[in-house]
Amino acid sequence: MTDHQTLKKVVLIVEYNGSEYKGWQAQKYDVPSVQENLEKALSVIADHPVKVICAGRTDSGVHASAQVVHFETHVDRHERAWTLGVNTYLPADICVVAAQYVADDFHARFSALSRRYRYVIYSAPLRPALLAGGVTWTYKNLDVEAMKQAAKKFVGKHDFSSFRAIGCQAHTPIRTILNFDVQQLGQYIVLDVRANAFLHHMIRNFAGVLMAIGAGEKPVAWAQTVLDAKDRTKGGITAPPTGLYFVDAQYPEHFNVPSRPLGPHFLPPVEEPPYELPS
Amino acid sequence: MTDHQTLKKVVLIVEYNGSEYKGWQAQKYDVPSVQENLEKALSVIADHPVKVICAGRTDSGVHASAQVVHFETHVDRHERAWTLGVNTYLPADICVVAAQYVADDFHARFSALSRRYRYVIYSAPLRPALLAGGVTWTYKNLDVEAMKQAAKKFVGKHDFSSFRAIGCQAHTPIRTILNFDVQQLGQYIVLDVRANAFLHHMIRNFAGVLMAIGAGEKPVAWAQTVLDAKDRTKGGITAPPTGLYFVDAQYPEHFNVPSRPLGPHFLPPVEEPPYELPS
Repeated sequence: MTDHQTLKKVVLIVEYNGSEYKGWQAQKYDVPSVQENLEKALSVIADHPVKVICAGRTDSGVHASAQVVHFETHVDRHERAWTLGVNTYLPADICVVAAQYVADDFHARFSALSRRYRYVIYSAPLRPALLAGGVTWTYKNLDVEAMKQAAKKFVGKHDFSSFRAIGCQAHTPIRTILNFDVQQLGQYIVLDVRANAFLHHMIRNFAGVLMAIGAGEKPVAWAQTVLDAKDRTKGGITAPPTGLYFVDAQYPEHFNVPSRPLGPHFLPPVEEPPYELPS
Repeated sequence: MTDHQTLKKVVLIVEYNGSEYKGWQAQKYDVPSVQENLEKALSVIADHPVKVICAGRTDSGVHASAQVVHFETHVDRHERAWTLGVNTYLPADICVVAAQYVADDFHARFSALSRRYRYVIYSAPLRPALLAGGVTWTYKNLDVEAMKQAAKKFVGKHDFSSFRAIGCQAHTPIRTILNFDVQQLGQYIVLDVRANAFLHHMIRNFAGVLMAIGAGEKPVAWAQTVLDAKDRTKGGITAPPTGLYFVDAQYPEHFNVPSRPLGPHFLPPVEEPPYELPS
């Protein structure tokens, strides 16, 4: 390539509605993925094929208010080309919300200290239409206090085999949950979970257990019972993907990764102290 | 019909995301409309063909958090059949949120004393993805105070020819605007308009003028100039349908039409005094 220069690394914050996608990464080439759309749009702006790496791959129907992504390029573009320019080539349900050049040793996946998800439940007698694909609806009344108590059992370093999808390919079922809050925000009940990393379906399996406890179908102590069983067949249902959002990934401060207000932005804002970096 | 009984009238509150529809009413039979989907679902539950009348027909891509609809039926069903039951036969982006039997002389269109719409603007440097079809995005900074001042010019009884679509079929361009508020709600700027009735594209044409004033491209006084011109070609652009929501219709109290919190429900709730009924 005649325009070859030093490789530069760019970090992007990406927002997407996952309703129409078979997840971040396509399993087959004939179904649309968020990654594929993003790579195509970046490749137009870069004028060379671009491959991206994300902080946390999301499943079919799962959304992101702030997915973190990096890629490498040898072209020299203003940062606005990687936001405004790229957005021109992306479908309406995917957009880049921030872009920044970043140090060579940054890696969206391997540099991440923690990932954070929110699971948004809408509890009402009748289902919603306006936010149909963006929340998990239940007609049941949920006891938020019971859910809060149960969620505390998951905090810390545990074997989460009971919350791991059968097909999960992780080497170990051990994960560290750094925070697990259950909040009533307006008419929504929001599970807010931060961990060093997650197993496949882990949060949706947490949601299945907590919703059963919230509905009074199981006692608060059941959370501990399921955790201790270390057996997926002793767990609850896998809650639907519709309410799940990737909302943040934390990196060492020196990488200076752009931050934005905690999403999804249809929720009322929450005042909270900044989290400590995990050691 | 062997099960013929006295005709009963039912009023429904209907929520829909208009993104995928060519409006409330289809112009042709080969494109989907909200009305057609609703009539099909009601007909299944009623076991006879049902025709519906709405308070205010919405255009292609326009939404409703609380459209008001009535229909007649000769079957006897619990009110829950007209909510839970009908919702089973509706697509995910349409739902009935309330149903109630109502007096014979009720008419969703002719009994309405006023209609209320909200137009939701999202002002940010980069476009949104999660609420892509549900807000009107502008990269421009808007002066909300200027928009508030300009909106006041529209309140009252006026000839709104400058805000009327070329194809509008109303007999007269005279309408009475009862309230026109411009509010900053979180990161959204919301136009909130109540009138006895509206002309075709009227709110989107208001939005076009107010957004130009908010962006500083036109002075506040331009609102009066456009109104006085009584000429559509002297007006602003027709703003996109994506941010527009039918949020309420008012009826005489004795009809006891079900009410619900002001939508769309991704906006923060607003404390407001109840509106006076127009005389």
